[in-house]
Amino acid sequence: MAAPGLDDPVEEVLDRYRTRTMATLLAHLPTGGPRYLYDLVADYPRRSGKGLRAALCLAACRLAGDGAEVDEAAVNVATTVELFHNAFLIHDDIQDGSEQRRGAPTLSAEHGVGVALNVGNMTNLLALDRLMANRDGLGSGTAWQLVEESRLMLRHSLEGQAIEIGWIRDNACDLTPDDYYRMCLKKTSWYTCIYPCRTGILAAGDGRLRRDRLDRYGWYLGAAFQITDDVLNLVGEYAAYGKEIAGDLWEGKRTLILIDFLGRCTTGERARTVAFLGTPRADRAATDVRWLHRRLMAYDSVEAARRSAHELADAALAEGQAALGDRAGTEDGRFLLGLTRYVVDRPR
Amino acid sequence: MAAPGLDDPVEEVLDRYRTRTMATLLAHLPTGGPRYLYDLVADYPRRSGKGLRAALCLAACRLAGDGAEVDEAAVNVATTVELFHNAFLIHDDIQDGSEQRRGAPTLSAEHGVGVALNVGNMTNLLALDRLMANRDGLGSGTAWQLVEESRLMLRHSLEGQAIEIGWIRDNACDLTPDDYYRMCLKKTSWYTCIYPCRTGILAAGDGRLRRDRLDRYGWYLGAAFQITDDVLNLVGEYAAYGKEIAGDLWEGKRTLILIDFLGRCTTGERARTVAFLGTPRADRAATDVRWLHRRLMAYDSVEAARRSAHELADAALAEGQAALGDRAGTEDGRFLLGLTRYVVDRPR
Repeated sequence: MAAPGLDDPVEEVLDRYRTRTMATLLAHLPTGGPRYLYDLVADYPRRSGKGLRAALCLAACRLAGDGAEVDEAAVNVATTVELFHNAFLIHDDIQDGSEQRRGAPTLSAEHGVGVALNVGNMTNLLALDRLMANRDGLGSGTAWQLVEESRLMLRHSLEGQAIEIGWIRDNACDLTPDDYYRMCLKKTSWYTCIYPCRTGILAAGDGRLRRDRLDRYGWYLGAAFQITDDVLNLVGEYAAYGKEIAGDLWEGKRTLILIDFLGRCTTGERARTVAFLGTPRADRAATDVRWLHRRLMAYDSVEAARRSAHELADAALAEGQAALGDRAGTEDGRFLLGLTRYVVDRPR
Repeated sequence: MAAPGLDDPVEEVLDRYRTRTMATLLAHLPTGGPRYLYDLVADYPRRSGKGLRAALCLAACRLAGDGAEVDEAAVNVATTVELFHNAFLIHDDIQDGSEQRRGAPTLSAEHGVGVALNVGNMTNLLALDRLMANRDGLGSGTAWQLVEESRLMLRHSLEGQAIEIGWIRDNACDLTPDDYYRMCLKKTSWYTCIYPCRTGILAAGDGRLRRDRLDRYGWYLGAAFQITDDVLNLVGEYAAYGKEIAGDLWEGKRTLILIDFLGRCTTGERARTVAFLGTPRADRAATDVRWLHRRLMAYDSVEAARRSAHELADAALAEGQAALGDRAGTEDGRFLLGLTRYVVDRPR
């Protein structure tokens, strides 16, 4: 499928929007206060993330505003998106028992669960502060709408997280790809893509674009992003990926890859995998992790997932083109469409 | 010091306001959704708490409204207070590694840290939902003010929590009572007493009472409450207290009791205590906990703390009388003043 601007420098636009958002985010962090709080709130944002969510928000805002440059009120909205994201990462790392994030120890691994949980909560509170600041920049009506959008996003995210944790807790081994996609819509697509686009459109004001205009684009883009993340967890290079390789297997995460394997493997392989997944994380053996890793590769389950991610990226492209119409050729239009390739071809 | 109504049935008023608030809280809990989420949000609220915060909020509201009966809009505000409180308990139990809460296993002990953290986050989100609902019941202006009060409370609470966790992490052994009181103001008084009173006054509308009218009362009441909690942790009966006895010693919590002991014990006792506190929680020995427990009793540190709690309760009574003026004789005035005895004499 041909599309305008797929060769455009996605990374350059990402970088520009990320830089602008990070400057605002860091400028608003409180200074002083007790140790292990505001100093650590700045930790994850300072580690070099992709800035995908901030960029989606600001690109959507500029598209909805028919090309008008984004102002500080819009950057404030993108800052909110990034703060909620960082809070989610901090808490997620506690929940998954993860050791590495963006190439360094997770907050919980370095400072303990108590400190990390508190820092995550403060990061959420700082996001709420930014939401309140919208009253000055965007007026009370739009400010309320942005709070509503944030509540909706948080609900989807927490429900998605409950589904994923519940599967591990109940040792669910008969999941279908549809189960996965439903979880992924809530856990990843909403807060990674749909929420940034909707709030970006709202930040442009005037109702020039319906706020759900990019929902379908965001849903497919988020799913392609998450599945690629799961693939990179198994085949990525640590230096580029920044998280422990095969961490998902240690955690027993129900990825599309694992679901595909469980649906096609032999009875004996299934029995061993179910037993492995039913073992408490601390008692899982490295030999079992390596065995499962090799089986997933041998069954081509990783490649199958990569193909699914590419199909979803194609769908995101088509939905994006339909949603953007004659805005598709603008810089931000080309960026959104280019992202559909970027999320599946990225090394991290 | 004599005061009107100290014999009034504090428990009866507590029970009435708690029952009303819990009915609203439970009525607003979402049903359905994934496992391990909304079902568990209802867990702590259903366990029989004191309902202190809801009662403070509704009593302050009725006092500010010159005796007008509280309506559903006010109960909605009290519900918000209780939801934030329950979220705080869930997260605090994770942070402290606590095993028991209100006579049953903590959410984290029963369902794991991942589930509990998520349920705590959802409980916070449901509190935010209630804050948004204030627009219908109290109007947009008051609704914004209640969000501001909640942000202020959350900031104090998270800073207080950071101070307390930081002391354990840094093995702080030279703290003064003043350090303790500063932490206690942030960690306990604000969200347990000051925030409920301020939001209750706001819920009454019209600015009939300044919202900071009960701040000083709340500050002393909260400190008396927290110190009594620390005392009960060491001398309480499990059946009444509902948490593991001496759990604070296992956690290395810096209570006024421990600070008093460290300031008066022998060099040898101090060395042993500092070494014990410097040992990771999982490696602490029961013999050391028992030894420290006996030392705290032998030095009269527990009784000294109990006396401090009573002095703070007296101060709360005096501040309450001054703040209430001729409202002191009303049912809710007598309740607030009676609480100053209740918080130090309670069995749990």
